[in-house]
Amino acid sequence: MTNAEKALQLHEEWKGKLTVDSKVKVDSREALALAYTPGVAEPCKVIAEDQAAAYKYTIKSNTILVVSDGSAVLGLGNIGPYAAMPVMEGKAVLFKEFGGVNAVPICLDTQDTEEIIKTVTYLAPGYGGINLEDISAPRCFEIEERLKEKLDIPVFHDDQHGTAIVVLAGLINALKVTGKDKESCEVVVNGAGSAGIAITRLLLRYGFKNVTMCDKSGILDESSEGLNWMQEKMMKVTNLSHKKGLLKDALAGADVFIGVSAPNIVSAEMVASMNKDAILFAMANPVPEIMPDIAKAAGAKVVGTGRSDFPNQVNNVIAFPGIFKGALEGHARKITEEMKLAAATAIASLVPENELNENNILPEAFHPTVAEVVAEAVKSHIAD
Amino acid sequence: MTNAEKALQLHEEWKGKLTVDSKVKVDSREALALAYTPGVAEPCKVIAEDQAAAYKYTIKSNTILVVSDGSAVLGLGNIGPYAAMPVMEGKAVLFKEFGGVNAVPICLDTQDTEEIIKTVTYLAPGYGGINLEDISAPRCFEIEERLKEKLDIPVFHDDQHGTAIVVLAGLINALKVTGKDKESCEVVVNGAGSAGIAITRLLLRYGFKNVTMCDKSGILDESSEGLNWMQEKMMKVTNLSHKKGLLKDALAGADVFIGVSAPNIVSAEMVASMNKDAILFAMANPVPEIMPDIAKAAGAKVVGTGRSDFPNQVNNVIAFPGIFKGALEGHARKITEEMKLAAATAIASLVPENELNENNILPEAFHPTVAEVVAEAVKSHIAD
Repeated sequence: MTNAEKALQLHEEWKGKLTVDSKVKVDSREALALAYTPGVAEPCKVIAEDQAAAYKYTIKSNTILVVSDGSAVLGLGNIGPYAAMPVMEGKAVLFKEFGGVNAVPICLDTQDTEEIIKTVTYLAPGYGGINLEDISAPRCFEIEERLKEKLDIPVFHDDQHGTAIVVLAGLINALKVTGKDKESCEVVVNGAGSAGIAITRLLLRYGFKNVTMCDKSGILDESSEGLNWMQEKMMKVTNLSHKKGLLKDALAGADVFIGVSAPNIVSAEMVASMNKDAILFAMANPVPEIMPDIAKAAGAKVVGTGRSDFPNQVNNVIAFPGIFKGALEGHARKITEEMKLAAATAIASLVPENELNENNILPEAFHPTVAEVVAEAVKSHIAD
Repeated sequence: MTNAEKALQLHEEWKGKLTVDSKVKVDSREALALAYTPGVAEPCKVIAEDQAAAYKYTIKSNTILVVSDGSAVLGLGNIGPYAAMPVMEGKAVLFKEFGGVNAVPICLDTQDTEEIIKTVTYLAPGYGGINLEDISAPRCFEIEERLKEKLDIPVFHDDQHGTAIVVLAGLINALKVTGKDKESCEVVVNGAGSAGIAITRLLLRYGFKNVTMCDKSGILDESSEGLNWMQEKMMKVTNLSHKKGLLKDALAGADVFIGVSAPNIVSAEMVASMNKDAILFAMANPVPEIMPDIAKAAGAKVVGTGRSDFPNQVNNVIAFPGIFKGALEGHARKITEEMKLAAATAIASLVPENELNENNILPEAFHPTVAEVVAEAVKSHIAD
């Protein structure tokens, strides 16, 4: 049986990967009267007087929603809300298993930006946070920004920020391994969707100065055609020297390649044209932009991918469970840029200096304390 | 410590009465690859081709939403979505503990009928049923009817239909105890909100012929002022002899009183004016329309209340967990009138003939097989 067949068979056995369970045994009239009527009226009355008491008496304290519209699911594309559920259930599984966070999967039967914003706003009172997932760009940017403005609970689009945090964590350590410097380093980000843009923004925020974005048409700058509003915004802070050309032109003389794009689009020649000790994060899944052995043979020093069967796996699961764990424990109202930077730095610090090398720049998914360490980093940056 | 204080303290310890748990242990790269990427893509692809496969591979098979807008919560009234959460969590607890049904509480931050209908429609793909809860009349009627039309999963407003099913179950047995007959029996329903109307409709459907509805202003008929559209509809099938007057006038010569109204509004004199062997379900909570001992002393034969400390508790928990258990197991698309009648009959049958008496007309909340029996009754009426 192939792994695909095994996964399908297991999903049929599970019939859904989640259960909703009661913390309360209701095995007597007395228990019923405390957990339900008439006793339940007491916390209701307190919350009716003071909304903040919801954190004290309800699941809002440690439960989030994982919300998708099924428009950009994994490598599968726009498969809609029914077919997206196994992924959102899986995400909820990871929140619980890695971060101890209760998460409810919601797949919305609308892909209208305004309707999604309204719906999530209506759902928010009972929950402590919103993890947006697999919503296509550029709608995801507007949905996230508007929800952040409207809601007083954290809103986090993992495809953007989870990816960006782990990439930055890996880069922090890759710079150490290669002796490169964030201010002088030339970075090329290939893929100008939600992940590519969020990575670029976080790298700039961290202190990288020279980032060039590319997409299928090649190097992007202000004069590129067909940019969406967020890409246009990005052109004001990237490729400031207005390079032109294709990806291969961008890579000549670059130090870092970050790929969130397509399989096998980087050649050995392109890697050879990069600066010495090049760093490549080739995160197309399951087939990366270039296979690690080819990149290494062409002169790359550090190569990361999205895959668990190669060194340096760039895996969001080392970030998002801890992010929400910390945000919920600290009753954060937002996930700020400072929290993201702190999370990336904390993740990087989990690889001890004496174990740091080109094949070990990131803690692995099953690192026993990563969620705890990320949560503490987030909590230490919650503003009053 | 009073029970109220104890309930509040327990709610603080629980910090929410529900957890969301994984059926899947994710403790190795292999497990991760089967429950999440890349394995999870397989059920996604199958569902993308065939929406019905969602029942095979996702939580849709056994998970429902408990949806409220916080507009008519218990005896507390319009306390809004934050304060309503402890009740909806409690309802989800009962679904799980009594019926084995996973239920997710949703309290919506809107009380606009159209917005509620749209929101629930957007949420439906991932879930196997919708239990509406504590939504004020007459909005609840429109919301339920429109959602039933739009969705292909069961939509059930428990305040209406759960209550109606248990009242009918109790009445079926009360008729046996008193030797009264449904066709000749005079029934007075006091309270013309969601529960009173749903009870009246189900009794008529079962075969009662003479039902009169009352509210605070007294007996209702077509000429009453200020009726909502649903009450107007009810006046075409109730009080066909156009009685006028107050509740006391309705009760004179009646056989059955069903109260979903207010404390202490039925006097001993009113009971004495009813026919011999009167049946009273005085369900105002926590103080009934008349205390059982007073009603009995005035000549009533069977008295039920909403309370667990008197005989004949009329408690929805003997209906709703089994209703959804059966609907989910049978992939029902609707909860039909036939299913409700079958559920009421099944509940009534759980009191063995030789144990049936005026103080024992309903199975108790903790009856070990009630959910199973109700589920089977529902399943046996699922149309192909």
